Amino acid sequence: MSSQSVYDIGAVYPWCMPKLWDETMEAHRRAVQDAVLETAVALVTEHGLASVTMSQIAKEAGIGRATLYKYFPDVQSVLIAWHDRHVAAHLERLAQARDHADGPSQRLEAVLLGYAHITHKRPQGGEIAAFVHRDRHVVQAQQQLHDLVREVVAEAAAVGAVREDVSPEELADYCLHALSAAGGLRSEEAVHRLVAVTLSGLRPAR
Amino acid sequence: MSSQSVYDIGAVYPWCMPKLWDETMEAHRRAVQDAVLETAVALVTEHGLASVTMSQIAKEAGIGRATLYKYFPDVQSVLIAWHDRHVAAHLERLAQARDHADGPSQRLEAVLLGYAHITHKRPQGGEIAAFVHRDRHVVQAQQQLHDLVREVVAEAAAVGAVREDVSPEELADYCLHALSAAGGLRSEEAVHRLVAVTLSGLRPAR
Repeated sequence: MSSQSVYDIGAVYPWCMPKLWDETMEAHRRAVQDAVLETAVALVTEHGLASVTMSQIAKEAGIGRATLYKYFPDVQSVLIAWHDRHVAAHLERLAQARDHADGPSQRLEAVLLGYAHITHKRPQGGEIAAFVHRDRHVVQAQQQLHDLVREVVAEAAAVGAVREDVSPEELADYCLHALSAAGGLRSEEAVHRLVAVTLSGLRPAR
Repeated sequence: MSSQSVYDIGAVYPWCMPKLWDETMEAHRRAVQDAVLETAVALVTEHGLASVTMSQIAKEAGIGRATLYKYFPDVQSVLIAWHDRHVAAHLERLAQARDHADGPSQRLEAVLLGYAHITHKRPQGGEIAAFVHRDRHVVQAQQQLHDLVREVVAEAAAVGAVREDVSPEELADYCLHALSAAGGLRSEEAVHRLVAVTLSGLRPAR
């Protein structure tokens, strides 16, 4: 009779639910990572980047230090992973908003409104933002965001709905900066007004 | 005969050029402070806020630690003083731009162009900016900047040159955020285009 643990179900009966088992493990890993990311961000927001250690993160997240180091080499990489995950979710959301709208003007408006909402709800984590924005991955993600906006601007310019005296590249830059004002706004109505004003700036010159 | 040093000229001959002497001392203090501020910012930009000490700043600025502590209690207050001085100079410059322009529309344009130029030339000191922006003095200075822009927007709205469906308060916020895109622009021409686009956003809705 085998001394193998009953918990090694995939090893004893390899044909038995391997996919489900993998999914369970993957969900577990994901849950641990989520806990680590949110804990790290909360600690850094409260105490500042310089004073947070890996040991604190492990303790607050309720896992061992060794487990934490299996996922991340240092505090910085935890913050970057957190930011990466958020940006990926935002890009996905903006792409969906774009794909659900009908026509170039509508796509432009949907993307700008989507971005303003994301900015409106995002915590204004000054120190974390300043730190992660130096990272190469984050610069790439920002570039993807910029590309997405530039494309809808160019598409709207091609049908005469956006001015052509300024490049879609520069107009995308203008949009992203102008809409970052949403972070300080108090109401949904104010966010809509900001989007309307920003869109007016894009209209063909009279 | 007095043993007083000939350098204590103000004490020996109090009627002798006291103003000039004060000015010389003031200029000296100012020069020392300038050296300290620029040194601190250069060190923090290169090595990060967490790793810069008062001793390093004193050494690099070429003064004694005791002298440095006469001016500033810690690294943070050096950075805040540096930022305060820059913001005061910027506000002064914007007020001058406003006062040299003739008429509400021209004043608005002059202030927005002035702000875009300041942003264009400012070093993008992410960590320092994130740090100082939490300080109360800096928040006040930002508020003064915001007030200055809000006033020229309101004045232009009163003569019909700016939309009235959005408050001057929110429009000033929009302007300052949109124009912060100037920091990433490569040419003066691009800065002018950004100001033109931002101004279009302010125009009364068609």
